[in-house]
Amino acid sequence: MPGPSLVRVSSTPVPQGRSTRLDSYVDRYAARTQGMTASEIRALFSVASRPEVVSLAGGMPNITGLPLDVVSQSLTELVAQRGTVAMQYASAQGDPVLREQITEVMRLEGINAHPDDVCVTVGSQQAVDLVTRIFCDPGDVVLCEAPSYVGALGVFRAYQCDVVHVAMDDDGLVPEALRQAIAAVQASGRRIKFLYTIPNFHNPAGVSLAAARRAEILDICAEADLLVLEDNPYGLLGFEGEPYRALRADESERVVYLGSFSKTFAPGFRVGWVLAPHAVREKLVLAQESATLCPPTFSQLAVSSYLADHDWKGQVKQFREMYRERRDAMLAALQDQMPPGTTWTRPAGGFYVWVTLPEGIDAKAMLPRAVTARVAYVPGTAFYADGFGSSCMRLSYCYPTPERITEGVRRLGGVIDAEMDLRRTFGGPLPRGERGYDGPQSDLT
Amino acid sequence: MPGPSLVRVSSTPVPQGRSTRLDSYVDRYAARTQGMTASEIRALFSVASRPEVVSLAGGMPNITGLPLDVVSQSLTELVAQRGTVAMQYASAQGDPVLREQITEVMRLEGINAHPDDVCVTVGSQQAVDLVTRIFCDPGDVVLCEAPSYVGALGVFRAYQCDVVHVAMDDDGLVPEALRQAIAAVQASGRRIKFLYTIPNFHNPAGVSLAAARRAEILDICAEADLLVLEDNPYGLLGFEGEPYRALRADESERVVYLGSFSKTFAPGFRVGWVLAPHAVREKLVLAQESATLCPPTFSQLAVSSYLADHDWKGQVKQFREMYRERRDAMLAALQDQMPPGTTWTRPAGGFYVWVTLPEGIDAKAMLPRAVTARVAYVPGTAFYADGFGSSCMRLSYCYPTPERITEGVRRLGGVIDAEMDLRRTFGGPLPRGERGYDGPQSDLT
Repeated sequence: MPGPSLVRVSSTPVPQGRSTRLDSYVDRYAARTQGMTASEIRALFSVASRPEVVSLAGGMPNITGLPLDVVSQSLTELVAQRGTVAMQYASAQGDPVLREQITEVMRLEGINAHPDDVCVTVGSQQAVDLVTRIFCDPGDVVLCEAPSYVGALGVFRAYQCDVVHVAMDDDGLVPEALRQAIAAVQASGRRIKFLYTIPNFHNPAGVSLAAARRAEILDICAEADLLVLEDNPYGLLGFEGEPYRALRADESERVVYLGSFSKTFAPGFRVGWVLAPHAVREKLVLAQESATLCPPTFSQLAVSSYLADHDWKGQVKQFREMYRERRDAMLAALQDQMPPGTTWTRPAGGFYVWVTLPEGIDAKAMLPRAVTARVAYVPGTAFYADGFGSSCMRLSYCYPTPERITEGVRRLGGVIDAEMDLRRTFGGPLPRGERGYDGPQSDLT
Repeated sequence: MPGPSLVRVSSTPVPQGRSTRLDSYVDRYAARTQGMTASEIRALFSVASRPEVVSLAGGMPNITGLPLDVVSQSLTELVAQRGTVAMQYASAQGDPVLREQITEVMRLEGINAHPDDVCVTVGSQQAVDLVTRIFCDPGDVVLCEAPSYVGALGVFRAYQCDVVHVAMDDDGLVPEALRQAIAAVQASGRRIKFLYTIPNFHNPAGVSLAAARRAEILDICAEADLLVLEDNPYGLLGFEGEPYRALRADESERVVYLGSFSKTFAPGFRVGWVLAPHAVREKLVLAQESATLCPPTFSQLAVSSYLADHDWKGQVKQFREMYRERRDAMLAALQDQMPPGTTWTRPAGGFYVWVTLPEGIDAKAMLPRAVTARVAYVPGTAFYADGFGSSCMRLSYCYPTPERITEGVRRLGGVIDAEMDLRRTFGGPLPRGERGYDGPQSDLT
């Protein structure tokens, strides 16, 4: 069982083996590399992956429900019938049949697209990377929701963009806040390259952009002549009714749309995509050639075969039901366990709940104590480029079972209670570690 | 059969469907994107892929000899035993077992490495991308052989590096030329970030760095305090004796080594790797997280299973014999068919022969005429960042059968003869297309 030494891991930054050796290459790195630093709480996350800890931190989908026999049969046929094609180089844009299938997936969200405008990527993470690569010079501004996806913030940092956050509420991005952010950036003389937004089942905020706001957001972007990068990995994982209509469904020239099979099938193949206006798609293909020559052929054909051979929509329906049950378990447990003054979002799909703690409680400073109590989460500051979010945390319900979620939230409630007691006893904010990049590098923990 | 219209495709750039539509996004792209332009001879290469054309242009390995039954069995077991692991996210650094196996592969070239210093990449193309990403600011100089690998030049261009070429001869990179290049760049006040070199069975030059030169090259780089990026995709595909000793075998802190399974197994999994000094490896993992979250788990475990379940070294031996036979066919045909004044390299491994044409013949201007005669190659200018190489071409013997190679070189000989006749009749250099980027984007055609 974790002992008190865990607390020390993060409250005082300690040497992490070889990683703190003097880096004799430090003068050689590119300017962009100076921003690539490992999270100071990374050591803590490796502890959090121990089985006795309930991790409400990670964003890994639960794929235990996948029909392995179908996948296996599908791969056997793929190798027998097209093995030397599947194992060979292919086009940088991606397999034509898969791109056709991708347009059918997007049709479920109202998108009418041509396969020629789809570019397959190594997960939609690479899609964020390639879009940023072709559009952003150092110092360019990217507008992001507040909070925003940690992996996208990492890309924007790697390309030396300035992230400006735009407020959300329970109905997603706030149009008036977007107008104000655009005006403020323009007044400062900087250039906005695009709005990065996750309209559906937001990671980490757990909210969705209200239908009534969608046209307004597009109008604001049109007026300011901004591109929109619509990131939609969870769109088909809604718990109520039909999938929401994509922004891209109503605006094809201004919206660059990102999709992924990581949550509707499996992440290990790393197959995502970009749907972009034709000229942009051409640049993306050139960027992909430079980045990888081509996305993995075998992965693409494996996904394509799975989509063709299996009732994948039925599988997604099962995923939805499984995640809904977990969402319900988490919301019920939060209702039972959270002290007064704590608030949280109520996601209608996806993987995440965003919790705001009672005033004065610092989620990052509390994390080592939570891990000692065998529960983990991601502190809110990870999802901001500007140090905000210290009183917030992201809780994931995607991976643990409902029973574990209930137990995890129970433990978390105890930790917050103890934190409030301490605060009442000693007053003022509790001590926390050094400021700096607060999050994991990605959602994988 | 291709008619005269083919000639027009490249001698006069013609509209290529939608690609020449006015790009309304052009003002929004990053500065780096301005250099990402499609090859003007790309249209020609799509013609060159017709079956009646013998393509000596592409760099695709011939994987028809792979044991598909072994691969299939291996994948069936993988899915049955570790399916949900293989289809899940994993570490950005790559699978630990695969990294251990990679160290065993590198041991064949004298490298003694720790798996912790290996970072798995999406093919070694992504390795070039990530290394350049962490080291190179715009304007930094990268030293490359003259000629150099087209895919690496594309990466350096995408990161806005200045490429300075260093002369080679039949024994590879010329030490004195390296000394001079370093001095010249330093005198100009610019900073060299690394020497990018392919010591073994060079693409495109078909030569290898002589054993006697290897220590000298390392000494020169040590003296100038330069890193070396050693790209070695063909190292195990030598036709004579044991694999050459890697530069990395004798220098672990200055050499960043790139390897790949694309030529020893299959490219469609896109599994390559970087072996780097520990501090650099840490930056590469952070860059990989930003680029893709993690390289494809399924691909990695597929390669790992193949290596474990199969006599992969025996398979590589078969590949070597197959490629040697094709090399022999190409050298014999060149001997028979090339007019006086033509010279070429004699590769001891790998995929490529570098041909220098008689004076005054421009390989790029001649390409449409060659395609009309149903043979294709890559003009030498593709392998230079500075417009040189116009009298040269790269011929690949990896993919066509020996009979097709013989026929292709026969056709090529006829085209060169005709070109020389024309030149004798009209004098002066023959007309060629617009200057600009001359090559394919990659080796896939």
